[in-house]
Amino acid sequence: VSSPEPVREPSSEPGARFLDEIREQPRALERLLEHEREFARVAAAARERAGSLVRMVGHGSSDNAASYGIYAFGLLPRWTALRDSITLSVYYDTGPDVSGSLVIGLSQSGQTPDVVEYVRRARRAGALTVALTNDAGSDLAREAEAVLPLGAGPELAVAATKTYVNQIAALALLAAHVAGEGARMADALREVSALLGELVPALEHRVSSVALPFAYVGRMFVIGRGPEYATAREIALKLLETCRTAAEPLTATDLAHGPVAALDPLFPVWTIASHDAALGAAVEGAARVRESGGTLLASGTAAETIEGAAYRLPVPEPPLPLLSPLLSVVPGQLFAWALARAKGLDPDSPRGLSKITLAR
Amino acid sequence: VSSPEPVREPSSEPGARFLDEIREQPRALERLLEHEREFARVAAAARERAGSLVRMVGHGSSDNAASYGIYAFGLLPRWTALRDSITLSVYYDTGPDVSGSLVIGLSQSGQTPDVVEYVRRARRAGALTVALTNDAGSDLAREAEAVLPLGAGPELAVAATKTYVNQIAALALLAAHVAGEGARMADALREVSALLGELVPALEHRVSSVALPFAYVGRMFVIGRGPEYATAREIALKLLETCRTAAEPLTATDLAHGPVAALDPLFPVWTIASHDAALGAAVEGAARVRESGGTLLASGTAAETIEGAAYRLPVPEPPLPLLSPLLSVVPGQLFAWALARAKGLDPDSPRGLSKITLAR
Repeated sequence: VSSPEPVREPSSEPGARFLDEIREQPRALERLLEHEREFARVAAAARERAGSLVRMVGHGSSDNAASYGIYAFGLLPRWTALRDSITLSVYYDTGPDVSGSLVIGLSQSGQTPDVVEYVRRARRAGALTVALTNDAGSDLAREAEAVLPLGAGPELAVAATKTYVNQIAALALLAAHVAGEGARMADALREVSALLGELVPALEHRVSSVALPFAYVGRMFVIGRGPEYATAREIALKLLETCRTAAEPLTATDLAHGPVAALDPLFPVWTIASHDAALGAAVEGAARVRESGGTLLASGTAAETIEGAAYRLPVPEPPLPLLSPLLSVVPGQLFAWALARAKGLDPDSPRGLSKITLAR
Repeated sequence: VSSPEPVREPSSEPGARFLDEIREQPRALERLLEHEREFARVAAAARERAGSLVRMVGHGSSDNAASYGIYAFGLLPRWTALRDSITLSVYYDTGPDVSGSLVIGLSQSGQTPDVVEYVRRARRAGALTVALTNDAGSDLAREAEAVLPLGAGPELAVAATKTYVNQIAALALLAAHVAGEGARMADALREVSALLGELVPALEHRVSSVALPFAYVGRMFVIGRGPEYATAREIALKLLETCRTAAEPLTATDLAHGPVAALDPLFPVWTIASHDAALGAAVEGAARVRESGGTLLASGTAAETIEGAAYRLPVPEPPLPLLSPLLSVVPGQLFAWALARAKGLDPDSPRGLSKITLAR
């Protein structure tokens, strides 16, 4: 059970909740770390009962977090993690055998119907099922064998922010515990919480002037590679849902395999560049954008390495390169907040969305 | 070795090669089936030496084909197939253990550098490596233990068409052989080749009037679920690279988790709906588009089930539901050809692209 947030008066200012929750992220991350023993317990069970295959299921921001999980499990215990097909299991009733896998169901609300159903079936089939959710009393928590609470506190804005950051932190923490490096990871996450506490107010002041020129931009690519591909996906989703900008995430390499042909100065590209083994691919991708006449916006811990960027939103270096995505998503969250406001949209309540998505 | 195409005079008409290759698809598919024994041999080796995990790697259309492979292997031998992270293996040098997996490297040219490198490392690590390529003399073919030739004949247009269809057919054929159903699948693919032979000329005449109203559309979503998610990805890529339309593929369910907020009448949604266990999700996704005021275009074998579609491009029913994607991609290919021509673009040679992508 997560410690409750103080009750807040609803603000009439559009985007106030979204901004509040972005600001809360450092504390939300600290609250996740209060559950460290639960992560250690689940990791021990995974080492004992599961093979080295992790199946993650989620939609929207939760699925973006799963993109990060591929790297957390791949680089720490060197396990294979995948964003599994929910459809195969739930609609066809004849999917692959999941027994012996570690299954992680990701859902802020714990109510996403096909994620709940996937986990129910996986548990029956003999997988070790874990619910990673912000509501320890939800359907998802009930269906799973173990619950890892996000501890982010209630999230009221429709667009996820602090629950996304806590999801990726939780995946890093779980993967580190599986690898026997849990204590080191928890310390590193505490440092990241402190860095976030400095980053958010500093960026809040900078981001509006960067976002304003994008008010008439209808389409963008957001590119990243390695763990930062999750950040590219999450920033693109924030832009779509809060700013109605058609932002598509791509790996830096996939950009070259077709989409680069669509670029022009009014089709900008946001590049996430962080100091990491995959940085070279991001730098090359940005060079291709420049050659094609696309406008570049660079963020990440290595934003300064992106030549010719028209705009830069750098973030500080975390103690472990794998944790860069916890910081590099923040410029995207704040940019989306500022751009939505510039366009007269309310990022707290995007048209046609509700906080809990019951779509199957 | 694939049977060579007759040498063609280069045509000066923009898009002539792209159209030629779309028209060639029925014959290209027949040529793939000449290699059936090689598929049977690789399948036997996979049953003997590999576990039930298939790792597929590719970029662009090849990666889209891999999305189809998840369903081919998931539904036929009920194996888990994943689009593996190339980055983990190639950039970090400390990725998961791939020994005991079936590895399939997908590349039309067989020259995509990081796919070649992934396969080289996987073979060294003890995986059963297979090159699925249109060039049996390529680097990829050399690095892999086994080669499955696509047999599509030379593909000259930059945007892939017949090699994509042969890639998904090849994945269906291989998965069927692993499941002991190879002969039945080969027969079904022969029937699909005949259906393609009727479909292409019929659609060629219809598609221009449907494409024309999209000349001023800057952005689209293309939605599908299950095996048709691969089709959604491939159609979106054709629109991006040949028409410069910012088309983003989504599963019908992911649309509800945020992106639906961006829709309006000038942000249309192409829905791939085919008769299949996942059709309900596609129909529900289309209903959400209608509620949000988005314009709907429907294709697939169940296009008629999409209520309120402004445009419909149905395709005939194949002998097995799993083979619908071989037919339902064709409206997208021809639509892209017609739309590019309407916009004065040359789909044979999109700006900034070359046939062989050496980007890492």
